[in-house]
Amino acid sequence: MAAGLILPPVALTMGEPAGIGGEIALRAWLRRDEGVPPFFVIDDPDRLAALAGRFGLTVPITEIATPAAVGAYFSTALPVLRQDLAVQVEPGYLDPANAAAVAAAISRAVGFAQGGEAAAVVTNPIHKQAMYEGGFRFPGHTEYLAYLTGQDGREVMMLAAPGLRVVPVTVHVGLVEAIRSLSRELIVSVGRVTATALLRDFAITRPRLAVAGLNPHAGEGGAMGREEIDIIAPAVADLVAAGIDAFGPLPPDTLFHPEARARYDAVLCMYHDQALIPLKTVDFHGGVNITLGLPIIRTSPDHGTACEIAGTGTANESSLMAALRLAAQIAANRRAI
Amino acid sequence: MAAGLILPPVALTMGEPAGIGGEIALRAWLRRDEGVPPFFVIDDPDRLAALAGRFGLTVPITEIATPAAVGAYFSTALPVLRQDLAVQVEPGYLDPANAAAVAAAISRAVGFAQGGEAAAVVTNPIHKQAMYEGGFRFPGHTEYLAYLTGQDGREVMMLAAPGLRVVPVTVHVGLVEAIRSLSRELIVSVGRVTATALLRDFAITRPRLAVAGLNPHAGEGGAMGREEIDIIAPAVADLVAAGIDAFGPLPPDTLFHPEARARYDAVLCMYHDQALIPLKTVDFHGGVNITLGLPIIRTSPDHGTACEIAGTGTANESSLMAALRLAAQIAANRRAI
Repeated sequence: MAAGLILPPVALTMGEPAGIGGEIALRAWLRRDEGVPPFFVIDDPDRLAALAGRFGLTVPITEIATPAAVGAYFSTALPVLRQDLAVQVEPGYLDPANAAAVAAAISRAVGFAQGGEAAAVVTNPIHKQAMYEGGFRFPGHTEYLAYLTGQDGREVMMLAAPGLRVVPVTVHVGLVEAIRSLSRELIVSVGRVTATALLRDFAITRPRLAVAGLNPHAGEGGAMGREEIDIIAPAVADLVAAGIDAFGPLPPDTLFHPEARARYDAVLCMYHDQALIPLKTVDFHGGVNITLGLPIIRTSPDHGTACEIAGTGTANESSLMAALRLAAQIAANRRAI
Repeated sequence: MAAGLILPPVALTMGEPAGIGGEIALRAWLRRDEGVPPFFVIDDPDRLAALAGRFGLTVPITEIATPAAVGAYFSTALPVLRQDLAVQVEPGYLDPANAAAVAAAISRAVGFAQGGEAAAVVTNPIHKQAMYEGGFRFPGHTEYLAYLTGQDGREVMMLAAPGLRVVPVTVHVGLVEAIRSLSRELIVSVGRVTATALLRDFAITRPRLAVAGLNPHAGEGGAMGREEIDIIAPAVADLVAAGIDAFGPLPPDTLFHPEARARYDAVLCMYHDQALIPLKTVDFHGGVNITLGLPIIRTSPDHGTACEIAGTGTANESSLMAALRLAAQIAANRRAI
C-alpha cells in the first residue's frame, strides 16, 4: 500500500462455517504484522471465540457495530460484525440450514464495499453443495457478486500468485463444453476486462497480455486442431486493434516457466486447468482468486472449504493473507489513479 | 550408474542438421565429467568439426568405425560414426534432401542398440516438416522407432524431470480429438506399460501411479463432465485389479505442487498439455522424453530443433545431458534386475 493513504478496512466473509474459514481468519489476524491490512469478519463472534479456544489461539474477539470501529480495535483484537447462524456446527459437519446466513454475510460485505465503508470484500470459501441444498440459487460466489452489483455476465476470474497471473476464459464447465463455448467474442471480452484491470487494479501502465492456444503446440499450423486459426488468432487481432498489447496464440506448455513469465503481465487461458495447473504448480498455498469486471474489489483465497481438515488445527492461512493484502493493494491502486 | 557395471556406449543421432543437435552434442561432450556417460554421435564428422570451429569449442573429433571404439577415445575426443549428408546445410536453413540421412542415423542407432553394441539410443530433435517433404512416412520419431523394433502401437511417451514424471495418454492430436479418443482400454494399456517401465527402467519396486481427471476438479461428481465416471474411474479400477498401485481420477490442478508430487512416481495425464504444462513449468531446460514400451532404450531432449537459434552459439545442452544420463541409468537398471 502506498504510504499516506488511509483506506477503510477490508470486509472478510464467514464462508462455510463447517470449513476452515474461521480458523484461517484467526490465524491471519495473529500474523497481522506481516502486511495484512486492517480487516473485520462478518461472522458469529461467539463461534469465533470458541474456535480460538479450541485451537489454543490467543485471539481476543471484539464485536463491532460498524466497520468504522475497526481502526480502533484491530491492533488488539479481531473485530467481528455479528452474523448469527441458524444452527451451530461442528467443524467438518455441513448443515444446509446455515446457507442463508452464509449468503447474508456476503451480501452485507458487498453493501459495505458499495457504500465505501469497506475498501474491498474478501470471501472465505463456501461449500456449493451445502449452499444449493440450503436454497442458494447462484452457481457460486462470483455469479452472486455479479448479481449483487448488477454486473451479470461481466465477471472475469483471475488467479494471481507472485510472478504469475492467469485468467481462464472458460471456467467451471466440463472440458468438452469449455471448448464448445470458446468464441472470438468471449476471448475479446475477457481480454478487455483483463487489460483494464491490469491497468486500474494492478497499476501496470502498458499491460502485456499473452494469449494461450488451445491445442498441443498451439495447433502447429492446423495440424493438431484449428481453434487457434479460426477463433483465437482473430480474437488476438481484435484485442490488438483495440490498442491492447496482446500476443498469441502461444504453445501452452512453454508459457509458464520463469523466463516465459517475464514476458507478460497476465495470460488468457482457454480453459480452467490450463490456468490452474501452472498457477498451483508454481504456488500452491499463496494463490489468490480475484473477480475482475465488478465495481467493487473482491478477492478470495484460492482453495476450498477444506472440511476434511476443519477442526484439526492444520489449516494454512497463507492464501487468505495474500487475498487480504492484494485486496488492500488494489484498493490503494484504484485511489491513486 | 551402479558401480562395476560396464555398459556399452550410448548412440546419439544427428537429428536435423540445420538445428541445434550438433552444437549441443559438442557442448555435452565438453561437460562429460558431469555424469555424462560415454556416447558417440552418428553424424558427419567433418560437419561437426566445422561446427566446433565456428563456435570456438575445443572438441577434437575422432571418426570411429564401430561403437566398440568409443571407450578408447571418449575421454580425449568426441567419437563420431560417419553418416554423410546429401547436402551441406547452414544452421537454420532446412533442406529436405537430408531427410534420408537423418532417418538413416536413427535406424543405425536402433540397430546398434538391438545388437547390444549401444546401451541405448538418444535422439537429437528432427524437423517434422523437413522430414515429410523429404519423403519420411512416419508421424515422428516415436512411431518410427516403434516400427523399427516391431512394436507398433505399444509405444508410450514419458516426460521426466527431477521429481516429476508424466505420461500423456493421448499425445499429438488436437484437444477435441484427444478427448474423443480417450477410452478405458487406452488408459489401462498406457498405465500397464508405465507401471512396468517404472519397475524395470526406474528400479521402483512398487510404483505409485496417480491418474489425473480430465475435467476441472475431476468433474466434481459429474457436475462438470462425466469422463471421470464413465471412463477414467473404471480404468483405475482395472489397473488396481491388475495389481498396480493406481489411484484417481484426481483433480488435475492440485496434482503437481511439491507436496502432491511426493505421493506418486508418475502421473497418467489425459492430454498433452496436462502433462507438458506442469513438466515444463517445473523444469524447462532439463526435461527428458523417454519412449516406453520398446525393447530398446530411447530418450531424447525435451525440445525441438530450435532452428531459429541454430548457429548463434546460444543452444542449451542441459536437456541433452539429462537424456544421455537417464539413458545410461535405465540401461544400468535393466542390467541390475
